[in-house]
Amino acid sequence: MARTLNVGMIGYKFMGRAHSNAWMKAPKFFKLKARPVMKTICGRNKAGVSEMADTFGWETFATDWREVVNDPRIDIVDITTPNDSHAAIAIAAARAGKAVMCEKPLALTVAEARAMQRAVKNAGVVNMVCHVYRRIPAIALAKKMIEAGDLGKIYHYRARYAQDWIVDPEFPLVWRLQSKVSGSGALGDIGAHVIDLGRYLVGELSEICGTTETFIKQRPKMAAQDGLAAKASRSTGRVTVDDAAVLIGRFKNGALANIEATRFALGRKNGIQIEINGSKGSLAFDFEDMNRLQYFNNNDRADRRGFRDIIVTEGGGVHPYTGSWWPPGHIIGYEHTFVNAAADFVNAVVANKSVQPTFEDGLANQIVLEAVEKSAKTRKWVKV
Amino acid sequence: MARTLNVGMIGYKFMGRAHSNAWMKAPKFFKLKARPVMKTICGRNKAGVSEMADTFGWETFATDWREVVNDPRIDIVDITTPNDSHAAIAIAAARAGKAVMCEKPLALTVAEARAMQRAVKNAGVVNMVCHVYRRIPAIALAKKMIEAGDLGKIYHYRARYAQDWIVDPEFPLVWRLQSKVSGSGALGDIGAHVIDLGRYLVGELSEICGTTETFIKQRPKMAAQDGLAAKASRSTGRVTVDDAAVLIGRFKNGALANIEATRFALGRKNGIQIEINGSKGSLAFDFEDMNRLQYFNNNDRADRRGFRDIIVTEGGGVHPYTGSWWPPGHIIGYEHTFVNAAADFVNAVVANKSVQPTFEDGLANQIVLEAVEKSAKTRKWVKV
Amino acid sequence: MARTLNVGMIGYKFMGRAHSNAWMKAPKFFKLKARPVMKTICGRNKAGVSEMADTFGWETFATDWREVVNDPRIDIVDITTPNDSHAAIAIAAARAGKAVMCEKPLALTVAEARAMQRAVKNAGVVNMVCHVYRRIPAIALAKKMIEAGDLGKIYHYRARYAQDWIVDPEFPLVWRLQSKVSGSGALGDIGAHVIDLGRYLVGELSEICGTTETFIKQRPKMAAQDGLAAKASRSTGRVTVDDAAVLIGRFKNGALANIEATRFALGRKNGIQIEINGSKGSLAFDFEDMNRLQYFNNNDRADRRGFRDIIVTEGGGVHPYTGSWWPPGHIIGYEHTFVNAAADFVNAVVANKSVQPTFEDGLANQIVLEAVEKSAKTRKWVKV
Amino acid sequence: MARTLNVGMIGYKFMGRAHSNAWMKAPKFFKLKARPVMKTICGRNKAGVSEMADTFGWETFATDWREVVNDPRIDIVDITTPNDSHAAIAIAAARAGKAVMCEKPLALTVAEARAMQRAVKNAGVVNMVCHVYRRIPAIALAKKMIEAGDLGKIYHYRARYAQDWIVDPEFPLVWRLQSKVSGSGALGDIGAHVIDLGRYLVGELSEICGTTETFIKQRPKMAAQDGLAAKASRSTGRVTVDDAAVLIGRFKNGALANIEATRFALGRKNGIQIEINGSKGSLAFDFEDMNRLQYFNNNDRADRRGFRDIIVTEGGGVHPYTGSWWPPGHIIGYEHTFVNAAADFVNAVVANKSVQPTFEDGLANQIVLEAVEKSAKTRKWVKV
Repeated sequence: MARTLNVGMIGYKFMGRAHSNAWMKAPKFFKLKARPVMKTICGRNKAGVSEMADTFGWETFATDWREVVNDPRIDIVDITTPNDSHAAIAIAAARAGKAVMCEKPLALTVAEARAMQRAVKNAGVVNMVCHVYRRIPAIALAKKMIEAGDLGKIYHYRARYAQDWIVDPEFPLVWRLQSKVSGSGALGDIGAHVIDLGRYLVGELSEICGTTETFIKQRPKMAAQDGLAAKASRSTGRVTVDDAAVLIGRFKNGALANIEATRFALGRKNGIQIEINGSKGSLAFDFEDMNRLQYFNNNDRADRRGFRDIIVTEGGGVHPYTGSWWPPGHIIGYEHTFVNAAADFVNAVVANKSVQPTFEDGLANQIVLEAVEKSAKTRKWVKV
Repeated sequence: MARTLNVGMIGYKFMGRAHSNAWMKAPKFFKLKARPVMKTICGRNKAGVSEMADTFGWETFATDWREVVNDPRIDIVDITTPNDSHAAIAIAAARAGKAVMCEKPLALTVAEARAMQRAVKNAGVVNMVCHVYRRIPAIALAKKMIEAGDLGKIYHYRARYAQDWIVDPEFPLVWRLQSKVSGSGALGDIGAHVIDLGRYLVGELSEICGTTETFIKQRPKMAAQDGLAAKASRSTGRVTVDDAAVLIGRFKNGALANIEATRFALGRKNGIQIEINGSKGSLAFDFEDMNRLQYFNNNDRADRRGFRDIIVTEGGGVHPYTGSWWPPGHIIGYEHTFVNAAADFVNAVVANKSVQPTFEDGLANQIVLEAVEKSAKTRKWVKV
Repeated sequence: MARTLNVGMIGYKFMGRAHSNAWMKAPKFFKLKARPVMKTICGRNKAGVSEMADTFGWETFATDWREVVNDPRIDIVDITTPNDSHAAIAIAAARAGKAVMCEKPLALTVAEARAMQRAVKNAGVVNMVCHVYRRIPAIALAKKMIEAGDLGKIYHYRARYAQDWIVDPEFPLVWRLQSKVSGSGALGDIGAHVIDLGRYLVGELSEICGTTETFIKQRPKMAAQDGLAAKASRSTGRVTVDDAAVLIGRFKNGALANIEATRFALGRKNGIQIEINGSKGSLAFDFEDMNRLQYFNNNDRADRRGFRDIIVTEGGGVHPYTGSWWPPGHIIGYEHTFVNAAADFVNAVVANKSVQPTFEDGLANQIVLEAVEKSAKTRKWVKV
Repeated sequence: MARTLNVGMIGYKFMGRAHSNAWMKAPKFFKLKARPVMKTICGRNKAGVSEMADTFGWETFATDWREVVNDPRIDIVDITTPNDSHAAIAIAAARAGKAVMCEKPLALTVAEARAMQRAVKNAGVVNMVCHVYRRIPAIALAKKMIEAGDLGKIYHYRARYAQDWIVDPEFPLVWRLQSKVSGSGALGDIGAHVIDLGRYLVGELSEICGTTETFIKQRPKMAAQDGLAAKASRSTGRVTVDDAAVLIGRFKNGALANIEATRFALGRKNGIQIEINGSKGSLAFDFEDMNRLQYFNNNDRADRRGFRDIIVTEGGGVHPYTGSWWPPGHIIGYEHTFVNAAADFVNAVVANKSVQPTFEDGLANQIVLEAVEKSAKTRKWVKV
């Protein structure tokens, strides 16, 4: 593994930490075609970013992303900033000829996403949008099974992403609750994931009808933010994003869609509950038990049919990705999805050929998100 | 328990069996204010109904429901026939001054349901529509908790009734797949239950938007029906009901609704998966594990919060209905919901005061069902 | 079904209720070779037994079991009394030529059990000991699978019967806590069930080593007993049975046994957790979810192996017993195990050929129970 | 974090990888009192160990552990070799004044373990035996709850460690199946963990009685070993360790123990199923769902009692360790237990005060293991 790829990462908070860990671990656990080097980390807050650089062993840090994007030593630009800066950074990085990895949702709007997709296409650079849940081994296995026809014709895709971190009305107005920075609320933050998984596993949507709701309309303004913790002040501000979104729809292949995203489901910490029903079998998944995939095979003998609780941790190529990790039953967690994605991205850069999910997927996702918002506003079905 | 109440039951197949069992068991397990007597069972097929009368110990049988409805000895008319005959029988029974119990959905149309509701109101007779799942102990406990405010303000009602008995395209065109007899398909047969539970647990809906789908449009015509088994012939006919229905909506109290009914979910045999999220806690339920209720209490100590898996089988008045049955952990099943309902109905007749769910509930349910069908046809949101 | 069989039942409390229900329901749900008639119920308390007779529709009642046993009209004697009277009644019934059904454990001692077994053998009467859990559909399915070789060679039988009804030290000294009446405690009451299931599913034990414990040694004496409820008085008495028993052992076929019975497992209401591991697959079961059987098939494709959650409710002969009950997914409960047993017993009486579990099984079970007690006392391994 | 601690690790295979990852991640995720530096990795196979050094970024490598142990720059010696070399290395390291971390089981025999314990005590060096499962957040929470008295008096400790990786009789004779290298089989490898957790959570054992079994007595000899994969040759050799061990026992506080370890439970990949029942509540845990702890609180309102499914992932000090990782519901996995342990060990070295589990715990564990072997051989109860 003589070849190296220098990574410049923009952003250093929650996602920056997840990505730093991924760049660090990928070459330790995967046999990669090049070794990613943690070259530069970038953030606007000098104290914060320098501490993060020191902690995770980034060689240098910067406070202006333009420096990183234009640094000739950098091969990969990895964007982990809030959603409102994705477009500018990604487009500049593409123009500078860098391979680009970008956190989801790809952009604030379809227009932005389209510009980003055009930029990477014109520049001919390898690109990926970080719908990393596609690389949960259980989801990757589901994909393989569906592609092999094991579910037959798909009838239902039912998915819900449920959290509960803002049920308390005293929880403050963090950036994720402000549309200018985040675009939308539960819809774009977590709904985007289950829309993406629907596109990945079932296919393209043809039309949707949805509605959104903001249950708590005023919240205390932020006094200060310290890492992930948020402190409330006495004055309040308006929540400008959705707390929850529900939608029904149809896929082009005729399957029905039922998708929900909410931050108001007490007890669901990071629940992604998916069920897919086809003419030959069904699959079910919950992110809180992400090492497992439930599989009902209608071809099993009649008296022995039942959802199989597959622990997706086998090595030797039996299950996707897991052979790079630990022995069977020794489970992996949330962070490993980022490592799996970083590993595939490194190999894609070496091969000079993007792997899914590309910016095209990010754009397609954005189109669905925008359709949901339009449907919620017009109270009508919207073609995707 | 000197007083007796003579029951005349119309219908003798699947529901007739469930109700016969209920009338038989209710006085054995509950201390009732009157003893129900299994007087007359009625069905059009003489051989079939006489055998059923003999098996379950009905004193007599009849082949014309009018006889039963007009028999002065009969106190309670119990209607377990297919949906297209509910209205005529119920209205006649009400006019004859009988207490009326009727299987769900109450009617084929809102117009019919309204006429039925008017009939029992005008006659002043005790009435109940058999949404017996309200009397699953776990559901009755959920109702108590919600009424006591334990969930706080409700944000989400998410429910799905999923079965898989017609996934096989060779499954024949039974009456439940013909709109003339059944009104609708999954929507009215099983969707009706989860709509009713939503109304019971959360409140009235204000508006909905839904769609329906018939995945298999042609099926073999029935050659013959023997009990519950169905045999297919070579010629095919058109399926005139929905295979699946999905809808989103809003309750008057502001909660979001997400409801699904399908007969195309392989592996789900009789799955009623419900989740209710409120500002103080959440509840979850699955009919396939009907003796359990999941409860998340956000007031539990922060480090010990988690969905409680309540086995709803305690006696001594701790849990609803279960004290009449078996010791804790000795579970009950599907059939017991009918017995619980029959027991409550007997006491209601003695008290001359209907208990929920009344024909008014049946009518309200029908209004929602019709709104869903209208929404599916017009592709618009519909006020309920 | 012209033929009838008159049942005389001794005992009328918890088990009397379960058996009354079984005799009532068996001919309604099963196509039997004879119709059981609920002729006589017998109990020492005239008021109690007459009320029970009235409630469940027994034709007559008696207060002396000898009357019933010697009544020439009686075909079947069903014994549901506390354990100390099983032997006398069963032996007398056998001598009187009656078919005999007896609650478990068969007797207080091996000597008694042997005398009972000899009596039914000499009399040539049909007999059954009520280890009704063998007729849980999931257990019957497990038996079929093991007999068909689907598990291969068995390596492990691990079973636990756990309840929690006497954890409270103020719970009074009911008859089940007095060795003179009950023989033993958790061991004979509930341990007997999982020992029986081990014998049924895996085979005969060759040797065991166990220990027992009485955690609460003094309890308030009973003031009065009203049905199943128990009231405590101020004076205390010594608990003369075990609260819990644990044992390890070996089956003749080489499998290891690990069996536990306890009334001190808070939260386990009627938990029977069984796991059986063989060379080709594994099975797992929990009575609190008695409609399900977990099955791991090592012959499934490597990437799709997982415990199958079989809902054992299919009709059409697919699953044992369930075709007589309700549609798939419409679960049954505790009481149905008694009905299934009564149905099989009726057919056995007509065929004049006992079906398992016979008094021979009851005796074999008693031998194991006594071996456990001996092992606990001598602190040694004991051959069975 | 100016201070650094140089780590010298002996062993570089499965455990070496888990420990390398731990040393790499600990300073990134925990605020430590010193920064561990990955100085030297040591293994007998030069090619293998140099590759591992390169992959994980160890500064140097060595092929003789004595060099490492005597290297004055080394502060911490971390032993991840097979069990037969633990004693020699640990004793030498202690004598050299190094802080010592050692994989479990501590030694092959009690004599060895005692010598090791004496060595670290005499040298006054900080020491830890890697029963890392104590640092699963759910287990650490369980410990807190038990210490706080939330379970009351403990009645039952029931634990099973079940795997299935050698059920296939063609699986070869790897070192873990040879007593000279591994000491014992399932007992010492995985049983040691659940014995340790019993000691940690409940207290010291007073006596045990157990038995062991080797189901497959001859296996193909190893042809070659490539990493974790094992290849079989044509000649066979004798398996000299147990495939499974079962034991019952008593704790000094009166609780009953029931412990099982097996490599013959098909479908259980790395199942550690623990249940603890006390006078006030119960806890249950399964390693395959290691982010969860089940808790039954008998003080909950009577109608709302049920095992709580606690997702042990809260930050802010609510749950142990998890605040250093990811947001709630974003689960961690097997490898994190090593990181948590390494973090605590670093701080212990700085404080010059060992934290549990020390070599004393390793010795105590070894005493139990030896008691089990003695009991299995003598077929008698053995005092611990």
